[in-house]
Amino acid sequence: MTIFVMKSCMILEKIEKENDIKEIPAEELELLAEEIRDFLIHKISVTGGHLGSNLGTVELTMALHLSLTLPKDKIVWDVGHQSYTHKILTGRRAGFEHLRKYGGMSGFPKRKESECDCFDTGHSSTSVSAGLGLVKARDLRGEDSTIVSVIGDGSLTGGMAYEALNNAARIKTNYIIVLNDNNMSISENVGGMSKYLNNIRTADKYLDIKEGVYNSLMDKKMDSLVERIRRAKSSVKHLVIPGMFFEDMGITYLGPVDGHDINAMLRVLREAKRCKSAVLVHVITQKGKGFVPAERHPARFHGAEPFDVETGLPLKPKTKSNYTDVFSTVMCKLGDRNPDIVAITAAMPDGTGLKRFKNMYPDRFFDVGIAEEHAVTFAAGLAAGGMRPVVAIYSSFLQRAYDQILHDVCIQNLPVVFAIDRAGLVGSDGETHQGIFDLSYLSSIPNMHIMAPKNKWELSDMLKFAVSFDGPVALRYPRGEAYDGLKEFREPIVFGKAEWLLNDRQVVLVAVGSMVKTALSVRSMLAKRGYGCSIINARFVKPIDTDILDEARKSHELIVTMEENVASGGFGEKVRDYLASVKSNTKLLTVTIPDEYVEHGNVDILRKEVGIDAETIVKRILEVLG
Amino acid sequence: MTIFVMKSCMILEKIEKENDIKEIPAEELELLAEEIRDFLIHKISVTGGHLGSNLGTVELTMALHLSLTLPKDKIVWDVGHQSYTHKILTGRRAGFEHLRKYGGMSGFPKRKESECDCFDTGHSSTSVSAGLGLVKARDLRGEDSTIVSVIGDGSLTGGMAYEALNNAARIKTNYIIVLNDNNMSISENVGGMSKYLNNIRTADKYLDIKEGVYNSLMDKKMDSLVERIRRAKSSVKHLVIPGMFFEDMGITYLGPVDGHDINAMLRVLREAKRCKSAVLVHVITQKGKGFVPAERHPARFHGAEPFDVETGLPLKPKTKSNYTDVFSTVMCKLGDRNPDIVAITAAMPDGTGLKRFKNMYPDRFFDVGIAEEHAVTFAAGLAAGGMRPVVAIYSSFLQRAYDQILHDVCIQNLPVVFAIDRAGLVGSDGETHQGIFDLSYLSSIPNMHIMAPKNKWELSDMLKFAVSFDGPVALRYPRGEAYDGLKEFREPIVFGKAEWLLNDRQVVLVAVGSMVKTALSVRSMLAKRGYGCSIINARFVKPIDTDILDEARKSHELIVTMEENVASGGFGEKVRDYLASVKSNTKLLTVTIPDEYVEHGNVDILRKEVGIDAETIVKRILEVLG
Repeated sequence: MTIFVMKSCMILEKIEKENDIKEIPAEELELLAEEIRDFLIHKISVTGGHLGSNLGTVELTMALHLSLTLPKDKIVWDVGHQSYTHKILTGRRAGFEHLRKYGGMSGFPKRKESECDCFDTGHSSTSVSAGLGLVKARDLRGEDSTIVSVIGDGSLTGGMAYEALNNAARIKTNYIIVLNDNNMSISENVGGMSKYLNNIRTADKYLDIKEGVYNSLMDKKMDSLVERIRRAKSSVKHLVIPGMFFEDMGITYLGPVDGHDINAMLRVLREAKRCKSAVLVHVITQKGKGFVPAERHPARFHGAEPFDVETGLPLKPKTKSNYTDVFSTVMCKLGDRNPDIVAITAAMPDGTGLKRFKNMYPDRFFDVGIAEEHAVTFAAGLAAGGMRPVVAIYSSFLQRAYDQILHDVCIQNLPVVFAIDRAGLVGSDGETHQGIFDLSYLSSIPNMHIMAPKNKWELSDMLKFAVSFDGPVALRYPRGEAYDGLKEFREPIVFGKAEWLLNDRQVVLVAVGSMVKTALSVRSMLAKRGYGCSIINARFVKPIDTDILDEARKSHELIVTMEENVASGGFGEKVRDYLASVKSNTKLLTVTIPDEYVEHGNVDILRKEVGIDAETIVKRILEVLG
Repeated sequence: MTIFVMKSCMILEKIEKENDIKEIPAEELELLAEEIRDFLIHKISVTGGHLGSNLGTVELTMALHLSLTLPKDKIVWDVGHQSYTHKILTGRRAGFEHLRKYGGMSGFPKRKESECDCFDTGHSSTSVSAGLGLVKARDLRGEDSTIVSVIGDGSLTGGMAYEALNNAARIKTNYIIVLNDNNMSISENVGGMSKYLNNIRTADKYLDIKEGVYNSLMDKKMDSLVERIRRAKSSVKHLVIPGMFFEDMGITYLGPVDGHDINAMLRVLREAKRCKSAVLVHVITQKGKGFVPAERHPARFHGAEPFDVETGLPLKPKTKSNYTDVFSTVMCKLGDRNPDIVAITAAMPDGTGLKRFKNMYPDRFFDVGIAEEHAVTFAAGLAAGGMRPVVAIYSSFLQRAYDQILHDVCIQNLPVVFAIDRAGLVGSDGETHQGIFDLSYLSSIPNMHIMAPKNKWELSDMLKFAVSFDGPVALRYPRGEAYDGLKEFREPIVFGKAEWLLNDRQVVLVAVGSMVKTALSVRSMLAKRGYGCSIINARFVKPIDTDILDEARKSHELIVTMEENVASGGFGEKVRDYLASVKSNTKLLTVTIPDEYVEHGNVDILRKEVGIDAETIVKRILEVLG
């Protein structure tokens, strides 16, 4: 491992709070950008974090801070993972020591962290809606400030950004939307809009104006002016005029401008501030700019683990496989066996593990962009057309498609499989990314079926079961390393049936998915204290296995349900309802995540904090057993 | 009342099943259109239903049926309330006798109703996603069929339609999107896209091509070709070229075409079928076409109650006010008292009752289009900017914004009020519109607070409470007539506190909102059988009032919770959890809607069907009491 030595931070050190950047002489700004980049690479190589997007927006953020006066003026960062330079320029440099650590600085904008963070973000495509709200509030309150939303071209594939642009188009007051265009989502960007922006970027289509309109109009051989105009119109249709798409909607377009040229951006922002309308400033940036490994491997450096600065390689090479890998492998096998299986991702071929499926079956793979709503209804359409779609979306992002699951998939009882990665606590991304609601929102939906695997082999078995099941199935599994214990327990998956793992007396733990591993610890700890403890792997959260619950309640004193989900609408409530319906006298303890948002931090710390770790569970069990 | 005499149905009667229309001689098609219109007006005047949208799409539907072969070819109807002519042309004329009645024909496309309905709809903006899924399935299965999605310009304000267009833009196979452009959502359409389409419709902007580009290019006085091109480009920016917006995305554009001219549509559809890409056919229609009252009052005839055909007036004039009216009145008062209050609707100023607020405070009213996601995050932005937004969205449509409520409003604990109309069973619109999930999906969200009023005065009190509460509040109330009983019970609203209405012994009914009225019936019926019965008005569903539950459980034998919501994550589960946590021995019966979709029909019939009517509840109570 090479030891990385940071270059000097002479200029950066002068920045102690917001607006300090304005005191830096113009000729030192480029050097400051370099220092910031250096700082980011150094810090993130130690803590991990979003690197590529932040390296891409160093100069853009500087230009915004030079043009605005914070906190009076406001910047809404779409997604928010690109706000590191903003944090540096608003006096939070020290926070990078504990970036995304429990109790440390968040990797996203947080109103409770700084007055200069005006709106919390985390999910994509919200910034124009929020910005427009701030604009209307400003005007109604007669305040005088500049509101800027910074949105990436990836976020622009999300429908709500378009809904907001559609509204922004009609305002008659200043509102600046900076389109940070790096031609990327987390992976390569997709769709018509991306192609359109690319046309603007490459820009040589301008020349068509000569070859097309001009020639048509100049052609003296043509009979009439009308005919010439007709032809010109047809040529114009093939022109790319920068921003015409936005101008057609009613949004003033400025650009494109080089997002690494501070002076150019200062000029265009000056112009933008004069507009009495929504104005879109099209800024071209490069993801990972200034750090070769991040420029070359943008997906890997999107959310990076700690890495070696010289080589860009992870400090702790992955040894064990995670659930995403298992999903990835099984999908490829299933794709081979069944030509009806198709796979859908919302801009995350890497994150969801579908990249291999994409490479093997490009015709059956669909990356729809950051468009979870469309992803789900598109899957419903595929299923209605006879295919077997597997939609792979993270738990917290699938929240976006609650209505589509309910309205387009489940009313028609269509065989769509939801592969829900990052279910449960996810760690350093924090509140916006915790996958702790899916059991609740999915359970409320009729015709939905929900499963969770105890270990890597069971994920494989469940996925095979799901793609051959005639109705909607959701399969939720956690972030990170796949549990590889309990290999010997591999009963075939039977619809609605749980699995007895260990049979004893007194206490029976009924654990959902990731909590089975925790249940083993609870059992050993109880054994040391002389208590007998059975373990049931729930497998199905909807429907629940009432037969096994009957067996369990008759032979035990206490049933303990364990799930990585909030209480309301979760597994524990279902079990409690069932036990009540059969007038059971067996005691029930439900272990769930409390009704509150869970901040960022190491998952093991978070488990303790929210009380779903083995120690806390044992303590609660002992209390009940008296 | 005038008695309406239907004109002849000579041609219409020849149509017994799909494709029969192709046997009708071309010269009789106009007459057929007239007969269909006549049939629709006659039938809907009796049953009620969606009139305006169906009168607008008679010729369009005929042209599609003439161009396609159903069921091999497929039509996806966005929203689906405009599918009546489609139902007529596919052998379902008789179904109009019992349109939207319990057990009768649905007002929306239903796969279980006909092979010619290829995809169920109900909510807006889903048809392009579903259509694209059918297209991909067709191609992967090597089938040969034409897929058409019919989407209104109103639905085009919904973000998921844009997400789908963004994907459709890149396909290299035929897919026809018919844009049914009537310049309307349910009410007047809004936003940049609407303005853009209007520019195409009015079309005189074409002339700019002469005055702009042509003059610039022809101007011999200009120095260089480059300068001429620069000027021409600037002129072109102000041109409207039909469909350029769609062409910019990569979608072939054809139109605009008159949507009441069958031959013109047949020609353009013929051309559309030849495209090896997604092709958008822009059809201009008039909502309510051919029925003067519907042409003049499009909002009233969107979803019409039975009406007099001669006058267009409702057969049963409304006597009592409904909850929407109460909300409407109180909002106007609150708007006067507090200048920070702003109101937001997603394309439903009439339906939500916000039209009066709009008229009184136009600057503080926002109709964002059919864009629930944006509506909620926009409200969050307004709240972050110091305003007090009230977002009025129907229960089933608010499902679209689950993530925005969770991620943009509640994480930041912003004071946004959700006024949730049509909560509970809604009746004739059926499965897609029942508001029976909101207590569940809202309960799962930390920081959310949920209330439901027992009668019209309480809605007023709760709304006043909500707009002065410092955090997110959801207020749910049902469709239709506002309950005006129990006027004498009007204790001030206190956070988290329920209201004792009637105190007795044995049974205590804890009823949520609309169920308080039912509780009174249950009480009388129990009284007749000699049972004592108390009634508590829950008021708050989150948080629940544990003090009153303690009091109730100590003085009663049986607690009965009553709610118009599914069980999972609902009020009953919360009460059960609480009773378990205090080791209560009091029996609990939870009355909820079962875990299944509820079809269309009269609400009173539906209540019985799902078991939340007084008789069924009494029966269940007697069973428990033994």
